[in-house]
Amino acid sequence: MTGETRKSEENSIFIGGKPFMNYVTGVIVQFGNGAKEVVVKARGKFISKCVDVAEVARRKFLTDQNVSVKEVKIGSEEFENKEGKLINVSILEVVLKKG
Amino acid sequence: MTGETRKSEENSIFIGGKPFMNYVTGVIVQFGNGAKEVVVKARGKFISKCVDVAEVARRKFLTDQNVSVKEVKIGSEEFENKEGKLINVSILEVVLKKG
Repeated sequence: MTGETRKSEENSIFIGGKPFMNYVTGVIVQFGNGAKEVVVKARGKFISKCVDVAEVARRKFLTDQNVSVKEVKIGSEEFENKEGKLINVSILEVVLKKG
Repeated sequence: MTGETRKSEENSIFIGGKPFMNYVTGVIVQFGNGAKEVVVKARGKFISKCVDVAEVARRKFLTDQNVSVKEVKIGSEEFENKEGKLINVSILEVVLKKG
């Protein structure tokens, strides 16, 4: 009964401002825990980092686990900024798949 | 006989450091010139901007032309930096399709 045990939605990693390798490690750990698919997601300026995380995890660290890019999706989301104004922000999702 | 008439490879737009709307306009012009597909590409830090360009062109300007995202591809390329060192850089391609 810990507060930390919420299951992350379909093994998702949300990319933000933490150090790059934190997210790469997150991907590796999720596959290590038996996930068949891991979704790496980002919004706005973190989208470039998101592609880097997916590529580095796949090409540098999971090379012996046959992980491939199953799908890449882009889209837009409405987002409320600090002034309470609704703005559009781009989103990107990379679905990594083992096997 | 001008030097400017080289045909851009499969109607591609390479995203770089120019103003955002230059690229959005580029996408609109290519569809206006009869292209069935336009590929919006970027490397590294310009990948976020690339998704924004594709989304804004499609959702704000080409709404009456039935343009959809046909495919999104990610990958890595070797890239020689200023010091002559080979580094990997992520790449992203968004294929926009009319009809």
